[in-house]
Amino acid sequence: MDEAVLTPILDILDIAGIAIFALSGAVIAAKERQTFVTMAFFALVTGVGGGTVRDLLIDAPVFWITDPWVAAVCLLTALIAWFTPVRLWQGKLFDFADGAGLAAYAVLGSAKALAYGIPPVPAVLMGIITGCVGGIIRDVVAGRPSIIMQPELYVTAAALSAAVTVTGMTAAPLIAPSLVIADGWIWGAAFLAGMALRAAAIQWQWG
Amino acid sequence: MDEAVLTPILDILDIAGIAIFALSGAVIAAKERQTFVTMAFFALVTGVGGGTVRDLLIDAPVFWITDPWVAAVCLLTALIAWFTPVRLWQGKLFDFADGAGLAAYAVLGSAKALAYGIPPVPAVLMGIITGCVGGIIRDVVAGRPSIIMQPELYVTAAALSAAVTVTGMTAAPLIAPSLVIADGWIWGAAFLAGMALRAAAIQWQWG
Amino acid sequence: MDEAVLTPILDILDIAGIAIFALSGAVIAAKERQTFVTMAFFALVTGVGGGTVRDLLIDAPVFWITDPWVAAVCLLTALIAWFTPVRLWQGKLFDFADGAGLAAYAVLGSAKALAYGIPPVPAVLMGIITGCVGGIIRDVVAGRPSIIMQPELYVTAAALSAAVTVTGMTAAPLIAPSLVIADGWIWGAAFLAGMALRAAAIQWQWG
Repeated sequence: MDEAVLTPILDILDIAGIAIFALSGAVIAAKERQTFVTMAFFALVTGVGGGTVRDLLIDAPVFWITDPWVAAVCLLTALIAWFTPVRLWQGKLFDFADGAGLAAYAVLGSAKALAYGIPPVPAVLMGIITGCVGGIIRDVVAGRPSIIMQPELYVTAAALSAAVTVTGMTAAPLIAPSLVIADGWIWGAAFLAGMALRAAAIQWQWG
Repeated sequence: MDEAVLTPILDILDIAGIAIFALSGAVIAAKERQTFVTMAFFALVTGVGGGTVRDLLIDAPVFWITDPWVAAVCLLTALIAWFTPVRLWQGKLFDFADGAGLAAYAVLGSAKALAYGIPPVPAVLMGIITGCVGGIIRDVVAGRPSIIMQPELYVTAAALSAAVTVTGMTAAPLIAPSLVIADGWIWGAAFLAGMALRAAAIQWQWG
Repeated sequence: MDEAVLTPILDILDIAGIAIFALSGAVIAAKERQTFVTMAFFALVTGVGGGTVRDLLIDAPVFWITDPWVAAVCLLTALIAWFTPVRLWQGKLFDFADGAGLAAYAVLGSAKALAYGIPPVPAVLMGIITGCVGGIIRDVVAGRPSIIMQPELYVTAAALSAAVTVTGMTAAPLIAPSLVIADGWIWGAAFLAGMALRAAAIQWQWG
């Protein structure tokens, strides 16, 4: 199980997703002129919130508790946000990066759930939760309308990535057993599908 | 332990409670003209939120992660809410159904806690949490004043059902050991007590 | 592990912290003229919220589920708040008591995390979470701006206590192995540091 989960591809997706989400948390605290400690708290909650809920639900050890690097990445991100102007981290480019983090987390979350033997439908939900819950906690604690209440294609993009991941990893071997598709290709396709949908939603303001 | 928890009575209470709560979540999303994915997310969070917190606290496997049906019921409920007019699911009749779900969840939650060897006072609290926490998360994420802040007899009704369940299952064998009361009767009485209090509060606008 | 965690000093810190936090939860419900059951719910959530999140994250049994006294202390606190005027529990004196609870919880939370073998950085975070999360949940559920969004030295005080605890318990033996410092002294110093910072912030309205 560990070999499947802890491949380098997932590791890179993981750290990138954490940093992007941590940054979006730190930026919200920065806009409110908070202390550094509060910014770090927001960076952490947003960066690891979704994966934490996933790990508690599937009864896995919470990923950042035993790994000293993840928390350090969040704190470092808060430090970067502290010493740079807020406007650097706003606008469409940041939204695209957030969309990439969303798709990466959705793929990672559903792949990890499948690796822990979770059935397909809950596994898709784990992907969505991993992608969306960090941002929801961030918005709820900050007293802002949460992403889930805005009629944007945000949760939908996570759902697409998670559904492609789970379908690819469970259905492909049944339909075409002779065709061995490496997990990396399925993850890449799933990431691109969710990322493309989210990017289109940002670009043309869908939803 | 499993025989006691997974009796048909509890199963029916469980599915009914999930569907009613999921519907109340989906309806809130529908009122805000959300996408279907967001409605499904709300249906799931509201439907399984209370039981999830209970299972995490008593260290039980989270009930809907290993069971593919529960998540399917929530998604189906969201689908029904999506294709029907919202006004169908509002008004006093829906409030009564929600009260029935509340009482059923309170009974189920405290009975499950007792089956896991939790002491009486925390077991009552598990019943209240199972009944109320799904709705609280729903309201907090939607940015609405949560049920817990309204001076209605809502939490009180859950507390009554949970207290009757725990008292019946722990005290009755001590007081009258010759009198064997089947758990089903205790659960029925506990459900009716909480349901009657909640129905009276809705009917005469108590609180 | 249990001997280290369950010393009398930590037990007293623990019960005092629970009662103070429970009171702050009950008082918010009292101000909104809630029913007793809602007050008790708030007392419980605020009193045990931070420690519950810590225990779930470090995979410890949730402390108040198996211990019948903790829940009883919360309910008793709610009872006291119910029968006394609210103004008794407001003002600067109560703020100082809340600061003491914050520092005590931060010490206790990080010490418990170290006892469970958590690395230093996450252990500091467990102390902060134990101190702050109960109050955050209280404010979020009550629909108030949460402590984390106010530019006060609140989270910072918890961070100071947690950092002193973790540094003292992990670094001191490495730097001065001949100097055996009893854990009690480290905890006392860590408590006083966080308490002093919080008291100064309250007294001179820092932040």
